[in-house]
Amino acid sequence: MTELDELIERVARGERHAVARALRIVDDHPEVGRTLAYRLHDHRRGAEVIGLTGNPGAGKSTVADCLITLLRKAGKKVAVLAVDPSSPFSGGAILGDRIRMSQHSSDDGVFIRSLATRGALGGLSSATFDSVRVLDAAGFDVVLVETVGVGQDEVDIARLAETTIVVLVPGMGDDVQAIKAGLLEIADVFLINKADREGVPALEKSLRQMQSLAPEHGSWEPPIVRAVALRGEGLEELLKVVTLHQEHARSPSGRDRAVSRANDMFDRLLDAALVERGRGRLAKPLVLARQRLRAAGADPYAEVLALLEAPELS
Amino acid sequence: MTELDELIERVARGERHAVARALRIVDDHPEVGRTLAYRLHDHRRGAEVIGLTGNPGAGKSTVADCLITLLRKAGKKVAVLAVDPSSPFSGGAILGDRIRMSQHSSDDGVFIRSLATRGALGGLSSATFDSVRVLDAAGFDVVLVETVGVGQDEVDIARLAETTIVVLVPGMGDDVQAIKAGLLEIADVFLINKADREGVPALEKSLRQMQSLAPEHGSWEPPIVRAVALRGEGLEELLKVVTLHQEHARSPSGRDRAVSRANDMFDRLLDAALVERGRGRLAKPLVLARQRLRAAGADPYAEVLALLEAPELS
Repeated sequence: MTELDELIERVARGERHAVARALRIVDDHPEVGRTLAYRLHDHRRGAEVIGLTGNPGAGKSTVADCLITLLRKAGKKVAVLAVDPSSPFSGGAILGDRIRMSQHSSDDGVFIRSLATRGALGGLSSATFDSVRVLDAAGFDVVLVETVGVGQDEVDIARLAETTIVVLVPGMGDDVQAIKAGLLEIADVFLINKADREGVPALEKSLRQMQSLAPEHGSWEPPIVRAVALRGEGLEELLKVVTLHQEHARSPSGRDRAVSRANDMFDRLLDAALVERGRGRLAKPLVLARQRLRAAGADPYAEVLALLEAPELS
Repeated sequence: MTELDELIERVARGERHAVARALRIVDDHPEVGRTLAYRLHDHRRGAEVIGLTGNPGAGKSTVADCLITLLRKAGKKVAVLAVDPSSPFSGGAILGDRIRMSQHSSDDGVFIRSLATRGALGGLSSATFDSVRVLDAAGFDVVLVETVGVGQDEVDIARLAETTIVVLVPGMGDDVQAIKAGLLEIADVFLINKADREGVPALEKSLRQMQSLAPEHGSWEPPIVRAVALRGEGLEELLKVVTLHQEHARSPSGRDRAVSRANDMFDRLLDAALVERGRGRLAKPLVLARQRLRAAGADPYAEVLALLEAPELS
């Protein structure tokens, strides 16, 4: 039995140390992590994957905190992946820490981890997808993926999560222009947090208007839930709606999106594998191309064209 | 002489109809467009590529309009690429149209085009990069690329443009949290538009504070310019600062970024080519994999692993 085989067995038995180690491998050594993820095939269990996104300051961590409490009460094991943009500005790293420091830190049924890596082209890294696979194999019933609503992450999350919750706050000038188009397209559930502030009806109205312009969301119309997460209000309603959506997503009428998500993941994995294999074969001529690119005026298009003719590729 | 050869010759002579046709090919038939772009190697001229990004409503079109006027006065030929998110919500398509309908429409030294395509993973599509290459070969001295500040586009634009202008508006709650981290990292120049509104000093102060936390921007500290583009105020100052940055970017101390941009473009082109070649070879087994993915429960990871063993790839 190789070391990796052993790690896989221990992950599948839900051993915390093994899970932590597997996630570290996925984040620090993506190639090994990918192999690990491929080999977890026989240990898939079908965890519910819930995405949580929204602008900084929308209160996502507090919402996550409340959801964990409710899910634990329902007897479910919960893992949280907080995707931290690598930017030093966003304060993203704080998210995971905030939850980690809460009352859940001593609960064996809760596992919280921040992921630092980003995709090469922005958006969620492949490590995020691989990490969800690890947590699923480890027996967590729910995997909550939290992203700051910056850039491509918020679009990618709908590719990963069965149910995506978009957290908004009233009174932030969230009129039709300010609500980012991407958020509308990915939301399965809207949560208006800090709903004790002014501007809730206006925000709801804007959302409804934009929804009426939106392309058909299939047979599911994203509901709007009000909450004041800091006081724990509205979260049970949120969880009820999420459960409804999960049932919908697994029903025949919701299956299209599951298939489209599987295809997205397949495309992503395949392209990454083709690139890795091609670049592996081109290792030597790549070094020379990089040298030429360091000289001013080299044409990237011409360099790629030359590489494609390399005997290593044929 | 093939049809493509002829098109290339006509583009290089700056014939408007040929340029329009080449751009249409790039947008509608990316594979042919890529070949076209590769073959423009001998016609590279080194146009200045300027990026213009910012949230919807920041006044980017008006700023672009003013810049065109000033650049034309300086005797420069100007092309504008307005990248329209394909989302029906953003109103992006209006941008290009707005400029097109302005006084520049009858000016032969101005060429305006909207691009509809998006990258597979979000962000600027490869067609945007290929289009800039066409416009450069056609003899435009400046190519202005305008993106709505939504998602990955705003990060990608710094990979394409020598100088990126980020347009902000005061009094929109642009405090340290609300200014998106991504925008700060890509800005070579900040333009505070609608600077006759309240809140300019507060916005400037926030920007300065965030800059002081930022990683070294090399030897260039992004200046902050105030403007009221609707009245044409501040745009000459903007252009002066952009020219300074262009000089900096082409100086020895600014060259690192040019090399890093060339490497980014090279990586992007190479990966796209490797994927295209691999998928071409796998055409038949891919059909079968898609069929299995349509059945519920197929594992994308397992499907990719099986494809990588296909004899077509060895």
